[in-house]
Amino acid sequence: MVTRIVECVPNFSEGRRPEVIQEIADVIRNVPGVKLLDRSSDVDHNRSVLTFAGEPSAVKEGAFMAISRASELINMEEHKGEHPRIGATDVVPFIPVSGVTMEECVELAKSLGREVADKLRIPVYLYEEAAVTEDRRNLANIRRGEYEGLKKEISLPERHPDFGEPVMHPTAGATVIGARHYLVAYNINLGTSDISIAKKIARQVRASGGGLMFVKALGIMLEDRNIAQVSMNLTDFRRTPMHMVFNLVKTEAERYGVPVIGSEIIGLVPMDALLDVARHYLRLEEFSGEHVLETKIWGSST
Amino acid sequence: MVTRIVECVPNFSEGRRPEVIQEIADVIRNVPGVKLLDRSSDVDHNRSVLTFAGEPSAVKEGAFMAISRASELINMEEHKGEHPRIGATDVVPFIPVSGVTMEECVELAKSLGREVADKLRIPVYLYEEAAVTEDRRNLANIRRGEYEGLKKEISLPERHPDFGEPVMHPTAGATVIGARHYLVAYNINLGTSDISIAKKIARQVRASGGGLMFVKALGIMLEDRNIAQVSMNLTDFRRTPMHMVFNLVKTEAERYGVPVIGSEIIGLVPMDALLDVARHYLRLEEFSGEHVLETKIWGSST
Repeated sequence: MVTRIVECVPNFSEGRRPEVIQEIADVIRNVPGVKLLDRSSDVDHNRSVLTFAGEPSAVKEGAFMAISRASELINMEEHKGEHPRIGATDVVPFIPVSGVTMEECVELAKSLGREVADKLRIPVYLYEEAAVTEDRRNLANIRRGEYEGLKKEISLPERHPDFGEPVMHPTAGATVIGARHYLVAYNINLGTSDISIAKKIARQVRASGGGLMFVKALGIMLEDRNIAQVSMNLTDFRRTPMHMVFNLVKTEAERYGVPVIGSEIIGLVPMDALLDVARHYLRLEEFSGEHVLETKIWGSST
Repeated sequence: MVTRIVECVPNFSEGRRPEVIQEIADVIRNVPGVKLLDRSSDVDHNRSVLTFAGEPSAVKEGAFMAISRASELINMEEHKGEHPRIGATDVVPFIPVSGVTMEECVELAKSLGREVADKLRIPVYLYEEAAVTEDRRNLANIRRGEYEGLKKEISLPERHPDFGEPVMHPTAGATVIGARHYLVAYNINLGTSDISIAKKIARQVRASGGGLMFVKALGIMLEDRNIAQVSMNLTDFRRTPMHMVFNLVKTEAERYGVPVIGSEIIGLVPMDALLDVARHYLRLEEFSGEHVLETKIWGSST
């Protein structure tokens, strides 16, 4: 009876009035079974990102409550900021963390989208894994023209929302809801101050260079330590696991006579990603999170 | 704000009356914040083992409630069984799992011991890490003569309990309370059907053979798979970590031209033991359980 965990990372078009973000954070926090993990606001972008997680149904409720409150507090007619946006609640991705499939997150996105359109009269677009058409997988296509442009074009058939009438909400605009994989920010430090080697390795290991399918990589310099780093985003750690990334970077670095001196995970990482590493190196037969003592204590339904 | 987890594995001198074990299990389960993880009874030994875990104070309360209930339900004057024992509740070890030190578990053992002696009039001996004298680290020394023998000798100064009067409780006898490390049952499978190789490796890697300090090992045969296995108990995974054990067995096996084909963890394992493995192989700099998403959700005090 392990708890099923979904993460949700809604983006709101407000980064200048802390009291507004506080109110939206509060409605999320007040949903039982939901845990607010992080919040960040950017004044120039005039945009905030909240991160919360919990059981799927609780997370969906938290997302609905937040979208509802944001539609009352944020007026897109008055919003200005550098970051592209089409609504008060701009984007809402659901992310499977533990015991939940991507398909379930897609269903969660669709179910929330229907509810937001029906009850709040906000038109909803589905994106990434939840997209109904291929061109809407890409968020940029949906946000083309931003709030002001979409307001004019939403009545065009090709820009009709996936849920709701083809009319912008008078203050909240439109909202994009979807599902995506957990993104692990993983960096590997090299025993060299030659950034060109980090850049070459990055080009080789990332998908666009013929490397690993779910890796985005850049070579950067850590000035304070005077070492080069391969800085990566792992966009699907289940299919391109961390140990595979580590081993490939290590092998590529050897070609330049450069050692891997360390690595780091930025932010939080799902336990499954680390258990995969232990399972791989220890050659564990039949091992899952069910064997971890903490999941028996924490993960039980109470 | 990660939850601190202690495990407790009390042994009771009753393995034939399921209703008695059920009653003891129930008083433990009814303590808020405590989770009963496992129970097992042996008819020949006439003995049962319960495993539960949770916050230190809740676990201590569960242990006290169980000792109290067992003293009412089990009469040592009538108890017979093959396993050595001195009391209704025979042995109570506290085990640090997460966010708790051994020193805290020793304090927990002493505090429970004092309470059991004061309130229940059961004499208490401290053992293993909680032992006050070196000879009482070893449970066998405390249990010498068993219930019947200790009843006669408890008044001798060298057999006086650590807490309470030197008189056996009329029905519950005496109880041993202490603290020990988490025991990980870890087996490594070899690509050979020659058990003599597994035995040689076992002798080499275990502490008694000059190998790793906190490893007990045996070579055994998995008849159904026709392969040999190095079967181990890791008695302190923090000081002798799993990856060190794996690598040493792998290196020793290479000397015989034998590959390691897999490994297995029997029962539950603390998350820290697996994070150590990931930290080692990925050469992670500054990484702890705090970076695991699940601990942020589960491990918060609610």
